[in-house]
Amino acid sequence: MREVFHDELRSLAEQLTQMSGLVSAAMANATQALLEGDLALAESVISADAQIDAQQRHLDDRAVTLLARESPVATDLRVVVSALRMSTSLERMGDLARHVASQARLRHPHHVVPEVLVPTITEMGDAAARIATAAGTVITTRDLELAAQVERDDDRLDELHKSVFTTMNAPEWSESTERTIDMTLCSRYFERYGDHAVSVVRRVGFLVTGEWMKPVQPVA
Amino acid sequence: MREVFHDELRSLAEQLTQMSGLVSAAMANATQALLEGDLALAESVISADAQIDAQQRHLDDRAVTLLARESPVATDLRVVVSALRMSTSLERMGDLARHVASQARLRHPHHVVPEVLVPTITEMGDAAARIATAAGTVITTRDLELAAQVERDDDRLDELHKSVFTTMNAPEWSESTERTIDMTLCSRYFERYGDHAVSVVRRVGFLVTGEWMKPVQPVA
Repeated sequence: MREVFHDELRSLAEQLTQMSGLVSAAMANATQALLEGDLALAESVISADAQIDAQQRHLDDRAVTLLARESPVATDLRVVVSALRMSTSLERMGDLARHVASQARLRHPHHVVPEVLVPTITEMGDAAARIATAAGTVITTRDLELAAQVERDDDRLDELHKSVFTTMNAPEWSESTERTIDMTLCSRYFERYGDHAVSVVRRVGFLVTGEWMKPVQPVA
Repeated sequence: MREVFHDELRSLAEQLTQMSGLVSAAMANATQALLEGDLALAESVISADAQIDAQQRHLDDRAVTLLARESPVATDLRVVVSALRMSTSLERMGDLARHVASQARLRHPHHVVPEVLVPTITEMGDAAARIATAAGTVITTRDLELAAQVERDDDRLDELHKSVFTTMNAPEWSESTERTIDMTLCSRYFERYGDHAVSVVRRVGFLVTGEWMKPVQPVA
């Protein structure tokens, strides 16, 4: 009976890792759609978000069923409750990728990202997608060194987020207000996406070490 | 024994209502600090957020203890799991109020909100604080009419959020890029705050009716 329960927990972890892969791909595609003004790609990210939402509901149902059926205590209980929280973070990451894609769709056929910010947004998209994939790996492997790498990648995302503001506040910035608004929002979406990934890996860290790590303080 | 359990559930609900009151006051004060450039008030919101975070941890510990000790099933289990989710939303609302206050502190002694946006931001702050208080009342009373009012107030917040962009995109807008960025972020904080309040009242609705309501789609 315990063995069956632990198989279920492993399967929950695998589903979370699968969701991480989906939200990573969503952000990679959303970034590409944003940079290239690719309407079809943007639409595909937007419609695929429903799958991520459905995965979350399915995962949450399974977790609640496990709670009802097995009445776990101690570490087992913490694992199930953590799974519920991680699925919430991952679902939110999917939303944020969808927001980036929506911005690309909204401005099509125009490009959202001005030339001067293309390298920054490219790096933000790469970091965000990498972070989500790594968070997924941490969930199944509980590799705390990789978790530390996620934290460093998120620090880099925060720096890039600040640098977007620095670029826009420089005297050379001559873009429209609409573009300033768009870039402020998109940069914020990337930054929040990173925060959620960090929150996922910290929950794993908590399960492994029993010590809660410092809370995520989003910049801005 | 069941009676004790239901007392505990009621007490969890009361603590959630208390948190709603704290996050409502935080947003009311943060808005005032933003509009009046009141540094001391901004600082007080920022430091009070730690109390909201502590309340959330306390509430979550109690909920997990309840799960471990009582092994609730069916509706009782749903109530405890919902309490965990509501506390997450409320904690996040506290963060968003802190972000608004941080913006006021960052620009002090300058005012963040240009004259033309003072009425809009005033109304956003009022709506946000009212929504949070109402969500708290819905948690203990399960008053679904009041829940519907929260949805309407949130719709109004979304309209105001869009109107901030309309104002900034108008040819008359001659504010600095910094101000455009600040107002984009602040408006987004209010809008997200409303979304979280709606998510709280929808969870209550779900507990009462067993029917999940339509998901919140944040604008922008």
